[in-house]
Amino acid sequence: MPTQTSDPDRIALLQGTLDMLILRTLATGPAHGQGIARLIQQQSEDTFLVDHGSLYLALQRLEEKDLLTAEWGTSANNRRARFYALTPAGREELLTRTTQWHKLARAIGLILNPEPAS
Amino acid sequence: MPTQTSDPDRIALLQGTLDMLILRTLATGPAHGQGIARLIQQQSEDTFLVDHGSLYLALQRLEEKDLLTAEWGTSANNRRARFYALTPAGREELLTRTTQWHKLARAIGLILNPEPAS
Repeated sequence: MPTQTSDPDRIALLQGTLDMLILRTLATGPAHGQGIARLIQQQSEDTFLVDHGSLYLALQRLEEKDLLTAEWGTSANNRRARFYALTPAGREELLTRTTQWHKLARAIGLILNPEPAS
Repeated sequence: MPTQTSDPDRIALLQGTLDMLILRTLATGPAHGQGIARLIQQQSEDTFLVDHGSLYLALQRLEEKDLLTAEWGTSANNRRARFYALTPAGREELLTRTTQWHKLARAIGLILNPEPAS
């Protein structure tokens, strides 16, 4: 359970899901780690709080798989930071995972809210 | 990954999700293991194929937590089988997990398909 807090309103993200959300966040342009975490938190309306450790492990894992590249740069508040960018393989992977996610969510929805038998 | 086949169209279910789907299946009435697996497969339109081992481990886990009860009975094709039924605690747990699932799915949806910035 990489991303978890004691706040019961927040939800733990499983590894594969975190990877997908990182890839999605980078699809709109490069970002540094803290920026990625902030975007995920903001866009999920504070449902997901990504902890530092899980995030960097995930970024490392994705970089090793050539799904993203990392380069040193300067952040908006003038600190040196690694900026991550999606590779073409990363974009492909995002598409695959997104498709799989929609399929999973749809199938779970079918079970949770089945059509009434007619 | 408890439920998985080599068919890429099928999706692996994580443990917590499988538990939720079992509880949901039993919400409409008691069923034996094979019946639960069949219902999950049918209602998910063959997206989820629950393997025997994962299913019985999950049923055991849920029974130990008093979320369901098990009783010997006779199946439609006249075999002895354990019939599982939801307990009040199981019904409560289903509600909690379903709420959490919808929240998770919604938050992921917000990130995958963000509102265009205006």
